[in-house]
Amino acid sequence: MPLTPEQQAEIEQHRAASSQTRRATVPALEEILYEPIPVLDHGFVRVIDYMGDDAAIVQAARVSYGKGTKKITNDRGLIRYLMRHRHTTPFEMCEIKFHVKLPVFVARQWIRHRTANVNEYSARYSILDREFYIPAPEQLAAQSVANRQGRGDVLQGEEAVRVLALLRDDAAQCYDHYEEMLNEDADGNPRDPERQGLARELARMNLPLNIYTQWYWKVDLHNLLHFLSLRADPHAQYEIRVYAEAMLEMTRRWLPIACEAFEDYAVGGAHLSRNGIEIVRRMLAGEDVAQADSGLSKREWIELMELLGRS
Amino acid sequence: MPLTPEQQAEIEQHRAASSQTRRATVPALEEILYEPIPVLDHGFVRVIDYMGDDAAIVQAARVSYGKGTKKITNDRGLIRYLMRHRHTTPFEMCEIKFHVKLPVFVARQWIRHRTANVNEYSARYSILDREFYIPAPEQLAAQSVANRQGRGDVLQGEEAVRVLALLRDDAAQCYDHYEEMLNEDADGNPRDPERQGLARELARMNLPLNIYTQWYWKVDLHNLLHFLSLRADPHAQYEIRVYAEAMLEMTRRWLPIACEAFEDYAVGGAHLSRNGIEIVRRMLAGEDVAQADSGLSKREWIELMELLGRS
Amino acid sequence: MPLTPEQQAEIEQHRAASSQTRRATVPALEEILYEPIPVLDHGFVRVIDYMGDDAAIVQAARVSYGKGTKKITNDRGLIRYLMRHRHTTPFEMCEIKFHVKLPVFVARQWIRHRTANVNEYSARYSILDREFYIPAPEQLAAQSVANRQGRGDVLQGEEAVRVLALLRDDAAQCYDHYEEMLNEDADGNPRDPERQGLARELARMNLPLNIYTQWYWKVDLHNLLHFLSLRADPHAQYEIRVYAEAMLEMTRRWLPIACEAFEDYAVGGAHLSRNGIEIVRRMLAGEDVAQADSGLSKREWIELMELLGRS
Amino acid sequence: MPLTPEQQAEIEQHRAASSQTRRATVPALEEILYEPIPVLDHGFVRVIDYMGDDAAIVQAARVSYGKGTKKITNDRGLIRYLMRHRHTTPFEMCEIKFHVKLPVFVARQWIRHRTANVNEYSARYSILDREFYIPAPEQLAAQSVANRQGRGDVLQGEEAVRVLALLRDDAAQCYDHYEEMLNEDADGNPRDPERQGLARELARMNLPLNIYTQWYWKVDLHNLLHFLSLRADPHAQYEIRVYAEAMLEMTRRWLPIACEAFEDYAVGGAHLSRNGIEIVRRMLAGEDVAQADSGLSKREWIELMELLGRS
Repeated sequence: MPLTPEQQAEIEQHRAASSQTRRATVPALEEILYEPIPVLDHGFVRVIDYMGDDAAIVQAARVSYGKGTKKITNDRGLIRYLMRHRHTTPFEMCEIKFHVKLPVFVARQWIRHRTANVNEYSARYSILDREFYIPAPEQLAAQSVANRQGRGDVLQGEEAVRVLALLRDDAAQCYDHYEEMLNEDADGNPRDPERQGLARELARMNLPLNIYTQWYWKVDLHNLLHFLSLRADPHAQYEIRVYAEAMLEMTRRWLPIACEAFEDYAVGGAHLSRNGIEIVRRMLAGEDVAQADSGLSKREWIELMELLGRS
Repeated sequence: MPLTPEQQAEIEQHRAASSQTRRATVPALEEILYEPIPVLDHGFVRVIDYMGDDAAIVQAARVSYGKGTKKITNDRGLIRYLMRHRHTTPFEMCEIKFHVKLPVFVARQWIRHRTANVNEYSARYSILDREFYIPAPEQLAAQSVANRQGRGDVLQGEEAVRVLALLRDDAAQCYDHYEEMLNEDADGNPRDPERQGLARELARMNLPLNIYTQWYWKVDLHNLLHFLSLRADPHAQYEIRVYAEAMLEMTRRWLPIACEAFEDYAVGGAHLSRNGIEIVRRMLAGEDVAQADSGLSKREWIELMELLGRS
Repeated sequence: MPLTPEQQAEIEQHRAASSQTRRATVPALEEILYEPIPVLDHGFVRVIDYMGDDAAIVQAARVSYGKGTKKITNDRGLIRYLMRHRHTTPFEMCEIKFHVKLPVFVARQWIRHRTANVNEYSARYSILDREFYIPAPEQLAAQSVANRQGRGDVLQGEEAVRVLALLRDDAAQCYDHYEEMLNEDADGNPRDPERQGLARELARMNLPLNIYTQWYWKVDLHNLLHFLSLRADPHAQYEIRVYAEAMLEMTRRWLPIACEAFEDYAVGGAHLSRNGIEIVRRMLAGEDVAQADSGLSKREWIELMELLGRS
Repeated sequence: MPLTPEQQAEIEQHRAASSQTRRATVPALEEILYEPIPVLDHGFVRVIDYMGDDAAIVQAARVSYGKGTKKITNDRGLIRYLMRHRHTTPFEMCEIKFHVKLPVFVARQWIRHRTANVNEYSARYSILDREFYIPAPEQLAAQSVANRQGRGDVLQGEEAVRVLALLRDDAAQCYDHYEEMLNEDADGNPRDPERQGLARELARMNLPLNIYTQWYWKVDLHNLLHFLSLRADPHAQYEIRVYAEAMLEMTRRWLPIACEAFEDYAVGGAHLSRNGIEIVRRMLAGEDVAQADSGLSKREWIELMELLGRS
């Protein structure tokens, strides 16, 4: 894992401290607070802070519903109802803060989720570490033929060896030159006193997109779930999906009821179009519907049949 | 204050419970957690939850600055630097959740701050309480003559008496008719069994804008400070300013260093235009600048002279 | 309709002017540009400006997809694909600006859609007109018994007459007193020279929630469609739904392809949960599934059977 | 410039077409519509679409001010007033859409401005072009000694030659290997029929941060001005500043009055702290204030003296 002994010690110190609070507290999440969960070869996710528990969703919804809800004693029922009917605002009342270490090309996908707060390590200000993402052999996939945006079979034999070597060597060489251009040793003194050293904000441009960066990322539950529904999805690129899966696991610890509802309705569910509903109704009525008379494009038809387990 | 004994008891119960947490904790804010601070005649603000302390701002900024900051040992210095130079993202790493009871016309101003999470009590779903904001006599101000958007002197004598009576009587009558239209007693049974009762979502339209509503409002520190800089400002309407002032006081408890920086730079500071700077330079150089040769409009000139204590 | 001859003339003047532009232009929308479409008794919606057409969605998506799409000649296919697979960012590339006149209680629901730009008529600064929403007799509905948030049958006979009279009379009286408190005539002079007049920002609090306000509301297509999917829905309150329906009609003129895809997938579609999909599969396989062994709550079961046309 | 003849032809075709519109139109901006303005060695910015003109700001503000403004005949005065007093919402009523080609490390800074709509060219889906940013010799700056986040003198002699060679050669080699790993020729056929080719979404990770990407970026005027105030600022990194400066120039064409107000108040202005104001007042009163008795830190004192032209 990617931590120095100093970083490890800092984390342990954080974990050892404890205070009294009147706030809602979730012991299952406290257990892993600050602890980095490894992702990819040098990355991690760790929870830095959180606000709220399952009850906080109900509490906020009940202000919104006021006295009217005094008979709904079942929090789980209410949370599932809210999730099912897209009453999203009560889910915004929980908040979580992560510290994430991730390759730059993953960070570039991630940052497109705009409704979140971010502080990233600055390569204008500081020097990045020599850490690059190199895929594990079983992740070294060929281009998919069916889907321009996906992966096919795993590369084999010499091609795999060659690709790994290229990724490793180019990263190493680019980083060597980054250091050479910076001309700074570990103490910030010039390596070569004859040279000035290129500005950090310029030198970084020589680094490849698989170099690791890190950030603090804070988000409310509603927007976290939206992120997870897109990024823990099988269509998401593997390298971001493993982060989303680690975070989904943390969300299960944090908010078991809301997370279960999310997995039932959002992750495990599917959307039917107007036509799709009509076709299901016709099929349930015993009709033998074919693509030709379905009103669906071939692609939509295939997607629907897969969903209905008929392909 | 506007609480029933049941509400008071619920709050006391909340306050009595306490847990262990590894999270950053702020004892000065814990002290008043859940406690409603009265605002206006029936309103309140209370802190429901919070995330982070002053150190959390530094912590997030240091990820962003990475190893580069190892020599800045002074958190206060860094926070003030960030505030002064509009490095706003570390301030987004703290979050706070309020429960607010407030008149509808105040809620309408407040909600225009969009970067926040809100759950409001629903008058579609529930019945609103008979509580209206009636200004204290010293707040019953005449229209300002100078500023279309401001207040002048306090109304006196018969006019004041008449205005207060109108506000009180119209509110009472509108609420009586609201109840009559709803045709529901305290247990949800029809008052008059001959009538059906108007839908709640329609009946509420008879209520005046000074009726109280309530909501949960959750916001990050950066956006909270932006809200406070606009709404704790002397140009803000008094009825929202008193909420902002109560929240500013809570923010001082929560994040004393960040809040001090905010008050020094944002609240107590002022913005000079390009021309304004030029004029100050000329004045400091001993020149006797007049509005005519200042390049400023009359209004801008007056504003600048006030700022410089020369009016 | 709610326009003075002066306002009508201003609009006609706007409509008469025409310029050359190199921008994407939509003749069907130009036809009704600036024209107020009546909604409710005194309200309207009109389109003030727009950016983009159906092709602009494709154009933006193709930057995102780059050269890869050179074979997709069918814009409609691409737009439907994007809609179906929740690739929402290309839909943010179209923008529309509305001028809306609407009752305050409708404005309060509307404003909760935060990702939009708003400028509202200020009752701090100006005097509101004497215009209130009074429901048409066929909209004067009783409280629903099944759904706390909905309407039941239409009120009949004396109850209906009484409710309409209350709404009308309270609005009239509150407005009379608003004017009396303001103490301003049409030219801004005091009605009663002995009195100062209450500040506008205070006097407005005597107005009921059915008074009309107006605003400019600007939004991108993705967020507009989200608004329409919630507010043109049968579960939305009638008084906001009629605005959403008028705007949906305008969107059909503006972006016929995107709007058709939206109506097929979003409006006319439905979401199935993980369990719901399982049940449909079992039913299609010939099994006779009952609620008891469905794993669904009674309420979810009823919703699913309705969707499948089996209730 | 970075355009192929086909791209050039497509742009010319766009520019040649023209339609009638009732919308607000700005001839000075129409003149350059679609035309790429070169930035850096291979980048550009071009305006794709816009909504609104200076009058649209006034129009929106006047809804918000309603009848109250009938005497303000001076649009310029109103726009300057709005800008000076941070009434920002009317500035959100104008919208502009850019197509930008820019190095990835610039894109990473840019994207942190979240209140905008973005569609980026996808390197998961498509193959990036062989285009890298190589600084011009006069931009090849050393690390600043005073400011960790800034540049010092320009590198000279052999060091400059060596740095340019490293940047060029590493980029070329990384791109060669990118192509080799992809194993696709210009027609999408395998170069080497024995190999499968690595998935695009993986191969891209070998590319350095100075490779060019492109996107559509759409933003409202208020958020554009915020972007420009930070990125056209001398403290911004040169490589993003040149984009901001090109866009500022376009904004001058688009909204001359709003842009002038922005340059007077925001760009050319400065913020004084509470203490700073006090010091200016003391100096204007003839006092000889020194840092020691100013209450300012040394750094703040230097910043203030520079602002006042006293350093």
